[in-house]
Amino acid sequence: MSFLEQSFSVKFEYKIHFTKSLFHTDNPTFTDFFKSNPTDVLRKIFFVLDQGVADAHPDLVSAIRTYFDQQQEVQLIPEILIIQGGEASKNDTGLFDRLVEAVDQYGIDRHSYIAAIGGGAVLDLVGYAAAVSHRGIKHIRIPTTVLSQNDSGIGVKNGINYKGKKNFLGTFAPPAAVFNDDQFLLTLTDRDWRSGISEAVKVALIKDPRFFYWIEDNAAKLVSRDLETMDYLIVRCAELHLNHIASADPFEMGSARPLDFGHWSAHKLEQLSNFSVLHGEAVAMGIALDSTYSFLSGLLTEDKLLRILNVLLHLSFDISNPFIQINDDESPILRGLTEFQEHLGGKLTITLLTDLGTGKEVHHMDHQLLIAASNYVLNFTSATAGLDH
Amino acid sequence: MSFLEQSFSVKFEYKIHFTKSLFHTDNPTFTDFFKSNPTDVLRKIFFVLDQGVADAHPDLVSAIRTYFDQQQEVQLIPEILIIQGGEASKNDTGLFDRLVEAVDQYGIDRHSYIAAIGGGAVLDLVGYAAAVSHRGIKHIRIPTTVLSQNDSGIGVKNGINYKGKKNFLGTFAPPAAVFNDDQFLLTLTDRDWRSGISEAVKVALIKDPRFFYWIEDNAAKLVSRDLETMDYLIVRCAELHLNHIASADPFEMGSARPLDFGHWSAHKLEQLSNFSVLHGEAVAMGIALDSTYSFLSGLLTEDKLLRILNVLLHLSFDISNPFIQINDDESPILRGLTEFQEHLGGKLTITLLTDLGTGKEVHHMDHQLLIAASNYVLNFTSATAGLDH
Ligand SMILES: NC(=O)c1ccc[n+]([C@@H]2O[C@H](COP(=O)([O-])OP(=O)(O)OC[C@H]3O[C@@H](n4cnc5c(N)ncnc54)[C@H](O)[C@@H]3O)[C@@H](O)[C@H]2O)c1
Ligand SMILES: NC(=O)c1ccc[n+]([C@@H]2O[C@H](COP(=O)([O-])OP(=O)(O)OC[C@H]3O[C@@H](n4cnc5c(N)ncnc54)[C@H](O)[C@@H]3O)[C@@H](O)[C@H]2O)c1
Ligand SMILES: [Zn+2]
Ligand SMILES: [Zn+2]
Repeated sequence: MSFLEQSFSVKFEYKIHFTKSLFHTDNPTFTDFFKSNPTDVLRKIFFVLDQGVADAHPDLVSAIRTYFDQQQEVQLIPEILIIQGGEASKNDTGLFDRLVEAVDQYGIDRHSYIAAIGGGAVLDLVGYAAAVSHRGIKHIRIPTTVLSQNDSGIGVKNGINYKGKKNFLGTFAPPAAVFNDDQFLLTLTDRDWRSGISEAVKVALIKDPRFFYWIEDNAAKLVSRDLETMDYLIVRCAELHLNHIASADPFEMGSARPLDFGHWSAHKLEQLSNFSVLHGEAVAMGIALDSTYSFLSGLLTEDKLLRILNVLLHLSFDISNPFIQINDDESPILRGLTEFQEHLGGKLTITLLTDLGTGKEVHHMDHQLLIAASNYVLNFTSATAGLDH
Repeated sequence: MSFLEQSFSVKFEYKIHFTKSLFHTDNPTFTDFFKSNPTDVLRKIFFVLDQGVADAHPDLVSAIRTYFDQQQEVQLIPEILIIQGGEASKNDTGLFDRLVEAVDQYGIDRHSYIAAIGGGAVLDLVGYAAAVSHRGIKHIRIPTTVLSQNDSGIGVKNGINYKGKKNFLGTFAPPAAVFNDDQFLLTLTDRDWRSGISEAVKVALIKDPRFFYWIEDNAAKLVSRDLETMDYLIVRCAELHLNHIASADPFEMGSARPLDFGHWSAHKLEQLSNFSVLHGEAVAMGIALDSTYSFLSGLLTEDKLLRILNVLLHLSFDISNPFIQINDDESPILRGLTEFQEHLGGKLTITLLTDLGTGKEVHHMDHQLLIAASNYVLNFTSATAGLDH
């Protein structure tokens, strides 16, 4: 019979600001954001802090209060809520309820803001609560880890876990703005500092050969925590992620996920290790495995594979975790392939490499080649790890 | 300091199909939808039914099973979940949990569907659960009331209530498709049949004079439940709503809400009456009040106002509810104005009329004029109601 057709586009825009000491009274970045988005209504802002950040930066809360005292653009809600950091924040639905409660209690409307300061986990939780409160309160992200500054915190996704299922509840909801302050990175553990670097290797390998060469050249500086080098890595990695999101399929309506290069095994590895392996650490192993598979299936030359494996070792990643071992069809890590396929909605789409900086999608992975790839990676590590660093 | 700029558009498209007896085995509409969106993966569909609909259509569940048995496009999940209809479904967060549970239990992924059959309340709940599960499962709406077929079920909003706050949690998430089956309307109560007509009066008054004249001419047929007349009203009303959503601000990022003409008092009236006054009934009163205010403030001529009030009476709407009485600044209904202002984020924007079919935005309502308008409406009703029907 008859039908009506609806069709429209919605435009989303936001900026990622790079700064130092965001809440120093002489840093105008934050106030300038509000000045450049003027309005004739009262705007409120509600801050949520990652406990790990608050502990490592004991003056942060008072700095925020002082900063907002000296401006008229936006009204700071007196309560600054501090919540536990890390994955635990995404597992505790009571925290989601607490945030929604605060929106109600403080009368935060669709012209007001919730700002989250923390790692990717806290940003994911607060972003989700903001996205569904009043059908979307404006959300400001202030990521404090390498991973969240160069990847998770600058994109369009949020989410919480549900009965242990990662990101089971969530939305696509671009932030109002992101502020990357490199001073937060100074207090990261070495593991958290290093972990996020693998996402830069990942995006370089599928998008930008010159960025990959730059990482090769700067691996030692990155490992020794040179902040200026890290600043460049974060800006370039963020830029590549942003460009990809904007040019492809921002809300992931299709089945391709090039930015998930190396991630099918990484997700499973995190889970198998009961999250004792960090996301970025698992991604490093996933990159090693899928790059090796690319070589073994004839897509990538061995000298290029060796450059990839070597840069991971130079960055001090351990790619020899026993969970990556694939012996037969029953090896636990292989279930990651099935789960990734289910996540995509039934059709498997995996990104492999044909060159440093060039990805290629395939729709099948051969178990025999995967067994060989996992043996190659595990042997490579033990054979050469001693030589290289 | 420096910044990166992100900017992209996301396109949304869906169709509203008009049909009769959607699940008759010889009706291809539903299967055709899946055929016209082919895929090489297994798609599942999970049905959720409004108890009121299931009770009034006792053969519906078996009709659905038979319908899906004879096609290969999509796999019907054997459980068909029946939940209570009406506002109660949006107040019970246990139902939201139950839906999310089902998504998990049945492995419904982002290429699968949740279909909801019911009134606007059930559609709002199921649409919300679908929107946040896996960051958005495809959602099919099968609205069964006049209001949901011509307004709430065809748009982009969903939501549930939180601690009695209407639509406190929700998202903007366009459906995958909408199927309007007029046979469902046959079992509505007279009140539910009539109630949704006021949204047509509303959208005609701000968008389309000829549609308003048509409603004037067909009021008697609409009241006597002539289905063909209602079919036209629903298509045209849906079309005007769709056009507005597509041309203006689909995700309501700004402050204007022309489709909320008459709604500031309607929302409050529903609440003051403890929801014994239906949404559409309250909207009829809100239209009467704001049209009269338009006349009293010199925007609209009195003969046009009289045509509006008369059409509402001809449609058998009661516009004399005592809650609409405004005596002074403390009259409860006036709080609706403040709440509407808060909902918009601080700046009041009210649509008034300058003509039949032409709205105009104002940012202030005068309390003295509102007192006069409410008296005019209440007196008009009692003076002429006996004459006109
Ligand atoms: N939304 C997305 O697109 C996306 C993408 C990738 C990953 N993620 C999510 O991001 C999360 C991981 O985020 P993460 O790697 O940033 O780690 P995290 O959020 O788990 O934080 C790790 C730890 O570091 C602490 N911490 C954070 N900043 C600190 C600082 N400056 N100084 C000292 N301690 C600090 C935290 O309290 C926490 O204990 C996962 O939940 C993952 O699912 C989301
Ligand atoms: N999402 C939006 O854009 C939007 C817009 C306007 C209103 N709404 C929401 O819609 C809801 C009101 O929806 P509604 O007016 O459709 O009423 P409703 O959903 O409250 O249903 C009213 C009653 O009719 C019963 N019913 C439904 N279809 C029937 C049928 N065919 N035969 C017999 N009984 C039937 C239901 O069981 C219920 O008891 C409110 O919650 C309102 O907030 C949403
Ligand atoms: Zn990642
Ligand atoms: Zn309405």
